[in-house]
Amino acid sequence: MLLHADRLFPVDPDVRGIARALYASVRTLPIVSPHGHTQAGWFARNEFFPNPAMLFVQPDHYVYRMLYSQGVSMDALEIGQPEIRNPRAVWRLFAQHYHLFRGTPTRMWLDYAFQELFGLEERLSERNADLYYDRIAELLQTEAFRPRALYERFGIEVLATTDSPLDSLADHAAIRASGWAGRILPTFRPDPVVDPEFDGFTARIRELGEQTGEDTQHWRGYLAALRKARERFRALGCTATDHGHPTAQTADLDESQAAALFAEVIDGSANAAQQEIFRAQMLTEMAKMSLDDGLVMQIHPGSVRNHNRQVYARFGRDTGADIPHPTNYVDALRPLLDRVGNEPGLTIILFTLDESAYSRELAPLAGHYPSLRLGPPWWFHDSPEGMLRFREQVTETAGFYNTVGFNDDTRAFLSIPARHDVARRMDCSFLARLVAEHRLEMDEAFELARELTCGLVRQAYRL
Amino acid sequence: MLLHADRLFPVDPDVRGIARALYASVRTLPIVSPHGHTQAGWFARNEFFPNPAMLFVQPDHYVYRMLYSQGVSMDALEIGQPEIRNPRAVWRLFAQHYHLFRGTPTRMWLDYAFQELFGLEERLSERNADLYYDRIAELLQTEAFRPRALYERFGIEVLATTDSPLDSLADHAAIRASGWAGRILPTFRPDPVVDPEFDGFTARIRELGEQTGEDTQHWRGYLAALRKARERFRALGCTATDHGHPTAQTADLDESQAAALFAEVIDGSANAAQQEIFRAQMLTEMAKMSLDDGLVMQIHPGSVRNHNRQVYARFGRDTGADIPHPTNYVDALRPLLDRVGNEPGLTIILFTLDESAYSRELAPLAGHYPSLRLGPPWWFHDSPEGMLRFREQVTETAGFYNTVGFNDDTRAFLSIPARHDVARRMDCSFLARLVAEHRLEMDEAFELARELTCGLVRQAYRL
Amino acid sequence: MLLHADRLFPVDPDVRGIARALYASVRTLPIVSPHGHTQAGWFARNEFFPNPAMLFVQPDHYVYRMLYSQGVSMDALEIGQPEIRNPRAVWRLFAQHYHLFRGTPTRMWLDYAFQELFGLEERLSERNADLYYDRIAELLQTEAFRPRALYERFGIEVLATTDSPLDSLADHAAIRASGWAGRILPTFRPDPVVDPEFDGFTARIRELGEQTGEDTQHWRGYLAALRKARERFRALGCTATDHGHPTAQTADLDESQAAALFAEVIDGSANAAQQEIFRAQMLTEMAKMSLDDGLVMQIHPGSVRNHNRQVYARFGRDTGADIPHPTNYVDALRPLLDRVGNEPGLTIILFTLDESAYSRELAPLAGHYPSLRLGPPWWFHDSPEGMLRFREQVTETAGFYNTVGFNDDTRAFLSIPARHDVARRMDCSFLARLVAEHRLEMDEAFELARELTCGLVRQAYRL
Repeated sequence: MLLHADRLFPVDPDVRGIARALYASVRTLPIVSPHGHTQAGWFARNEFFPNPAMLFVQPDHYVYRMLYSQGVSMDALEIGQPEIRNPRAVWRLFAQHYHLFRGTPTRMWLDYAFQELFGLEERLSERNADLYYDRIAELLQTEAFRPRALYERFGIEVLATTDSPLDSLADHAAIRASGWAGRILPTFRPDPVVDPEFDGFTARIRELGEQTGEDTQHWRGYLAALRKARERFRALGCTATDHGHPTAQTADLDESQAAALFAEVIDGSANAAQQEIFRAQMLTEMAKMSLDDGLVMQIHPGSVRNHNRQVYARFGRDTGADIPHPTNYVDALRPLLDRVGNEPGLTIILFTLDESAYSRELAPLAGHYPSLRLGPPWWFHDSPEGMLRFREQVTETAGFYNTVGFNDDTRAFLSIPARHDVARRMDCSFLARLVAEHRLEMDEAFELARELTCGLVRQAYRL
Repeated sequence: MLLHADRLFPVDPDVRGIARALYASVRTLPIVSPHGHTQAGWFARNEFFPNPAMLFVQPDHYVYRMLYSQGVSMDALEIGQPEIRNPRAVWRLFAQHYHLFRGTPTRMWLDYAFQELFGLEERLSERNADLYYDRIAELLQTEAFRPRALYERFGIEVLATTDSPLDSLADHAAIRASGWAGRILPTFRPDPVVDPEFDGFTARIRELGEQTGEDTQHWRGYLAALRKARERFRALGCTATDHGHPTAQTADLDESQAAALFAEVIDGSANAAQQEIFRAQMLTEMAKMSLDDGLVMQIHPGSVRNHNRQVYARFGRDTGADIPHPTNYVDALRPLLDRVGNEPGLTIILFTLDESAYSRELAPLAGHYPSLRLGPPWWFHDSPEGMLRFREQVTETAGFYNTVGFNDDTRAFLSIPARHDVARRMDCSFLARLVAEHRLEMDEAFELARELTCGLVRQAYRL
Repeated sequence: MLLHADRLFPVDPDVRGIARALYASVRTLPIVSPHGHTQAGWFARNEFFPNPAMLFVQPDHYVYRMLYSQGVSMDALEIGQPEIRNPRAVWRLFAQHYHLFRGTPTRMWLDYAFQELFGLEERLSERNADLYYDRIAELLQTEAFRPRALYERFGIEVLATTDSPLDSLADHAAIRASGWAGRILPTFRPDPVVDPEFDGFTARIRELGEQTGEDTQHWRGYLAALRKARERFRALGCTATDHGHPTAQTADLDESQAAALFAEVIDGSANAAQQEIFRAQMLTEMAKMSLDDGLVMQIHPGSVRNHNRQVYARFGRDTGADIPHPTNYVDALRPLLDRVGNEPGLTIILFTLDESAYSRELAPLAGHYPSLRLGPPWWFHDSPEGMLRFREQVTETAGFYNTVGFNDDTRAFLSIPARHDVARRMDCSFLARLVAEHRLEMDEAFELARELTCGLVRQAYRL
C-alpha cells in the first residue's frame, strides 16, 4: 500500500488517537475549493484526459521544477508543448526520478491519486513505469474518469477557477446551461489589466474597453469597465477577486492624482516606481469596489515571477521559476487599511510566501482589523510542515476564527482530494496536540475541525 | 475543571514525567515581576476593583482586539471610557464570543483566573455569563480581593511598574510610607521626553525642566534633567529603564552634533529622519547614564504604534492596534555597542517582536557582548509556542545564562500568576525535552529551572 | 558517562527505535569533510598538540565567545597570543564556567571529545579541572594523539582546508610528498584578493601578480592570475572554491565596465557601493571559471565580520564577533543565475546565516535551478535544533537531493567526529519521524541516511 491510514498523524499514541477521532469526523465532509487553477473547459466539455503525462507531469510545475533542478531537461519532458508527442517517454523519465520527491508533498499527492484513483499500490519507479502508464492510460478512457464524474466522486461542493477579466467565461456559461449540478465558479483576477508589467498590458486595456463599452483610456472609464467586468463575473456566481502582485503595497491617491498616474501608465511613460504605485492604488480601488459589490478580496503577494530569464524566454509564465521574496505587510497595507480596514462588511484574505511574516505581521494584523483574514499556507508552504508552522505561528495571536480554511490552489485536478486530505489531517493533528496538552477541550476540537474544513471557508468566501 | 494539572507539558509520558518533576520544584517559588504595566495607585489606595468588565475586558487590549477583529464594536465594549456604564452588557458580549480565544494564551490566562481566584470550573459561554458575572462581582467586594491581599496571595516578591519621567511617583511614595511590606518599584520609561513624535513632546520637555530645575531647552540641561529624574526614580527603588522605540537604531554623535540636533528637535524643525537619529542618540545617552548610576536598560523596539488611524483617533494609544515590523539589531545597535558594549558593568536587555531575529541576530549578539542579555518572548510571543520558539532558537547560541527569566508585562493584574505559571511550565517542558534527549542531566535541569524562574531575573534586574 | 547512546534521538519509543536503526547503518561510515578550517601544517609536520588550553580553548571562538559574553576577559584566556603562558590557569577558568554551555552544541562536542578520546566520564567542573587537565595533557604527548593518528582513528576519508590564493600550499605539497595516505585537500578561498575591504587588499593583489607572473594591475591580467592560482590549487587536489562575502549580491557587467571598476578598486578610489559591485562581479567571474575548470563553488554570505570594534582592534579577525544579518538571495543571485544558472555542469552550494531564507528563498531556488544546491546549516545553526529547522523548512520544496550532506566547518580538529556524529543523529531523527508518520518507507530512509552521510557530499563536491 502506498498510503497508511495513520499517515501524517503525530506519533504519540494518545495524540494519534485524538487526531484519528477528529479526522474521522471530517474525512468525508464535502470539498469546498474556493481558490484554484483548474479549467472550466474540462467541465464544460467533459472530455477524457488524454494520457498520464499530460495529466500528471506536463501541467504541474511542482513536478517538473524538481526534475529540472536535478538536470532533467524541460525539452525531454515536453514542457510547454500543446500536445505531448511521446507521453510514454516523458512518463518513464518521471518514474525514473521519482525518488527525488521523497519528503515532499508532491510525492504524497501523487501516491494518493495512484492508489485511490488507479488502484496502484507499489511505489512508482523506473521498473514499474510502464505498468503504471498502461493502467492509468486505460482508466483515463473510462466514463468514471471524465471530469464531471471525478468532480462528483471527489465530493466537491464548489470549485472556483481563476480567470482574467477578459475571459469570455463561455465555459462557465456552458456549464450552467448544461444543467449539470456541479458548481464551478469563476474568480475575478484582474492582474492582466491592472499590472502595467503584464505582457500586452495596453492591448488588454483596449480589449477591456471594447468588451465593456467603456472608455478605458481614461481613469473613470477604466474603473467603470472594471466594475462592469466584476458584475459579469458575479452574474456567473463569482464571489471573490484575486490579486497576485509582486508586493503587498497599497496606496490611496486622490482622484486627480490617480487619473494622472493612469494616463502615464497607459501611454507607457510610467517608470517602475510609478507602475508599483499604480498597482498599489488598484488594490485600494478593488477594495472599494468590493465594499460595493460584496466580492471577497484575496491578496497573494511576494512572488518574483519568471525569475529564470532563460526558462521564461523559452517556456513562458508559470513554469516553475517563481521565487518568493521578503514581503512587508505592516507598512504596505496601511493606506488601504486607513481607508477601509475597519469595515466589517469587507473581507480581505491575505496570503504570504514569507513565513517570517506569520507571527510578526499577519497574525497581529488579522487579530485586530475586522476586514482582514488569513489565507491558508500557500504554494511552497502548502505542505505538512508548512501547515503546522502556519497554525503554530498564527493561532496564538489571531485565533482560529481569523483564518479561512483550506485552498488547494492547484492546476492538477486529480490532486484535489489528496490536498484536502493532507490539510484535514494536519489540522486534526494540530488540534489533537492542543487537546493532549490540555489547551483545548475535546468538544471544542470537534467543532473547530468542522470549522476549519468547511465552516470558515464557506463563510469567508460567502459560498 | 478548566485547568488540567498537566496542561502545557509535552505529551510523551517520559518527558511529561520529567517536566512535572521540574515544575514541582519551581511551582511555588515567589513571583519576580521586573517589567509590567500594573498601576502603583492600586496598591497605594488598595481599593476594591469595581466590576468584572472593568477588570477583565476594558483594560486588556489582548481581549478586545480579538473581539474587534471579529466585528464586535469597541463602542459596545465601552473601550476608552473612564467608567463602564453597563458592565453586565459588556461582560455578556465578551462571554458570547469566548470561543474566539480558543488556542490563544489569553484563554489560558483567563481560565486560570476564573478557576483559581473565583472557583469557576465551567467554561465561560453565553449561557453562564451572568453566573460568572455575579460570582466575580461578589468576590471583588471582599477583603481577599483588594490589591494588596492579591499581591500577597500571588506570592509576589517584587513588582515593577512602568512610569513616565514626569510622573510624581506619589503612589510609589505612598506605598513606601504606608508601611506595607509589598515591594512595588517604578521603572524609568523616558519615551515621552526622548521621542519627538510623542504627543505633546515639547510641553513635556518644558515640564521636565520645571520639575528638575534644569534648563531643558538646551542639550546639557536636558541631560542633567534626565539624570536628576533617574535619581528620583532610584530613590524609590527603581533598578531599570525601559525604551519603546520604533526601531533599535542607536547613534553616537559628538557633543556639538548632539546639541545642534537637540536644538532642532526642540524648536520643531527636525524632520522624521532627524527625529530617528535623536531617538538613536538618546539610547546611547541612556546607556552612558546607566554606566554611571547602575540602572539596567531594557530596549523594546519594533512596534508600529497606533497602526489603525481611526481607532487611534477615537480611542487613543495602547488600544490593540500596535503591529510589529521587521527589526534590525546587528547594524542598529553598533554605535551604542562600539561605545559601551564591552562594559561588563552595564546590562542591556533586548526584546523583539520579530522572531526571525532570534537566531540570526539576537542570540549571536548576546552570546558575545558582555553587556547584552535577551529579554523573554514579548507581547504577541508571550505564549506557549512563542516561548518554545524562543528557547529553541536562542539557547544553542546564547545559552541559558544570557537570558533573564520571565516578564509578565501585563496591565491585567489578575493575569500575573497565570502568566508566570505558563512560563514556568514551558521552561520546564523545554528542559524536560533536553533531559529526555540526553542533552542535559537532571541535576542541571533542576538548577536551570530555578535560575529561569528566579535567579536570572534577580541578577539581571539587580533586585 | 557523559554521552548516552540514545542522545539526540526523538523521545517517542517507536521513533527512537527507527532512528537507532538508521543511525546504526551510518554510524561507522567514513567522515567526508569537504569544508573546514583545520590546518594542513598539523598533518604536514605531525607534531604533538601542545596542551589542553591550546587545543580546546584558544583556537575555538565558539568557546571563548560564550565565556566573554558572561564577563570572562579575553586577556585572562590569553586569546590571540602565539603561545599560552599559563595554560592551566586558562583551563581552570574554562572549567569554572562550563555550566554556561548547557544546551549548546559546544557542550556536546566537548563532552564527546572528553569521553571518546580521553576517557573522561565525569562532567567538567571547577572541581575536576586539574584532573581533566592532567589526563588530557598526558595523552596529548602520546603517539595516538598526533594529528595523523587522529585522522586515521576518526575514520576520515577526505578533509578539506580553506586557503588563501596567496598560500604557498607548501604544507599540502609536503603531505603529498610524505607518502602518507591521508587525503588533505586545499580549498580556494579568494576573499583576500577579491574583497577590496580586506586588510592589505592592494598589496595582496600585487603579491598575486608576482606569484603568477601576471599583470594584476589590470583586469585581464588579474583574471588570468586567478585562473592560474585556481589551477595551482587543482593540482593539489582542490575541488572547490569558497566565498565569504558580506552579501550574496552578484553582478554581470560587460568587460569594459568590469575593467573600469577594477581600475577604481585597485587605485583605491572605489567607494563602498562600488566595492560591493566589485565583489558581486567577482562571484560571477568565479562561476564562469568554475564552468571551465570544474571547481565547485561555495557561497557563504550574510555575516557582518568583526562587529565588535574593540575586540577586532585588540584581537583581530575571527575572534567570535561576527554577527549575521538579513540576507537576500532572490534578487542578489539573479545576475549570476541569468548568466550560468541553467548550466547542469556547474555546482553552486549556497549557505545562509539567515534561517528565514530557508523556506522563502533557498529551497525554492535550489528546487528549480540545476546549478544550485543547499549547503548544510552553517555556524550558529550547526546544532541539533538548527539541523532540524533546516530539514523541516527545506525538504518539502527542495527535497533531499538538492542538499549536499554535512560540513563540519571547524577549526577544532578534535570536534570533527563529534560534529559528524551530531549530524548523523539529527538526520536519522528527522528521517525516523517521516517514517513513523508514514511519509517515507523504511527502505527509502536507509538509502537516504547513506546519501545524507556520504553519497551527496561526495557527489556535490566531486570527491
